[in-house]
Amino acid sequence: MDALTDSGVALDALNAHFAGMPPVAALQPTVADWRDGHLQLSAPLAANINDKGCAFGGSLVSLMTIGAWGLVFLELAQAGIEADIFVADSRVRYLKPVFEDIVIDATFDDAGERAQLVDTLRKQGRASIRLKSESLLAEGGVAASFVGRYVAIVRNG
Amino acid sequence: MDALTDSGVALDALNAHFAGMPPVAALQPTVADWRDGHLQLSAPLAANINDKGCAFGGSLVSLMTIGAWGLVFLELAQAGIEADIFVADSRVRYLKPVFEDIVIDATFDDAGERAQLVDTLRKQGRASIRLKSESLLAEGGVAASFVGRYVAIVRNG
Repeated sequence: MDALTDSGVALDALNAHFAGMPPVAALQPTVADWRDGHLQLSAPLAANINDKGCAFGGSLVSLMTIGAWGLVFLELAQAGIEADIFVADSRVRYLKPVFEDIVIDATFDDAGERAQLVDTLRKQGRASIRLKSESLLAEGGVAASFVGRYVAIVRNG
Repeated sequence: MDALTDSGVALDALNAHFAGMPPVAALQPTVADWRDGHLQLSAPLAANINDKGCAFGGSLVSLMTIGAWGLVFLELAQAGIEADIFVADSRVRYLKPVFEDIVIDATFDDAGERAQLVDTLRKQGRASIRLKSESLLAEGGVAASFVGRYVAIVRNG
């Protein structure tokens, strides 16, 4: 019952992973929800505040980056694949300031790419996939948007 | 002698600014050099390490973002202009892992835009400017590159 294919175990592993990296732990992210190809993270404003009393842009991009990373990690864990996952490039737009606790929603950019991810990794040992993240406001708007390309490489061992 | 137009005072103000924001302070950035339109920041690997023993991508993008932000802050301080400076968008490429202390070099993307920045702010109260940052390796290579657009708005008061 401690295989990463169990979703609770995979979520615990992801939270432990975040907590184990000092610059990520400093952001205080929590996995809030994972379902239907979406991963939501939350993080307290107090740990991520800038001089203007709103969320620091670097925190938003970091959280959007690890949200998308975490979604790939969870999908691969569920398929029983252990891989090293790297972010290769990203693009961010800052649209509105965030004066509240941060909520990030990460998902796949392309359903077809997502559907082939596990197959490609099993056949080729390596895959590239594009994800998107948004920083969501309680009122319903989007504060920042992110698109990033990730590379996963199956671990031999 | 405590006007921000004094470069030592402006650098102290920038370091204090970084130290005053929790998510930035966590990265432990230090202003290493500022000359000829370049700002260099350094940050210890230990505060920015990921699970693979190299620098966390979110730390690199945060440091490249604040390096470019800091350069605009310093140039405007030198011209006696107090402005709010926001990052509007950015694009990052991760090229190589960083297994050493992080060094960031930020500069203006366009010499003409830089030359007009102060004039535009004095006339219009608002300006948009593009900057670029690189994460430099001790061996001479580039680990990550960043291009970002910043908006400065003169403070009234």
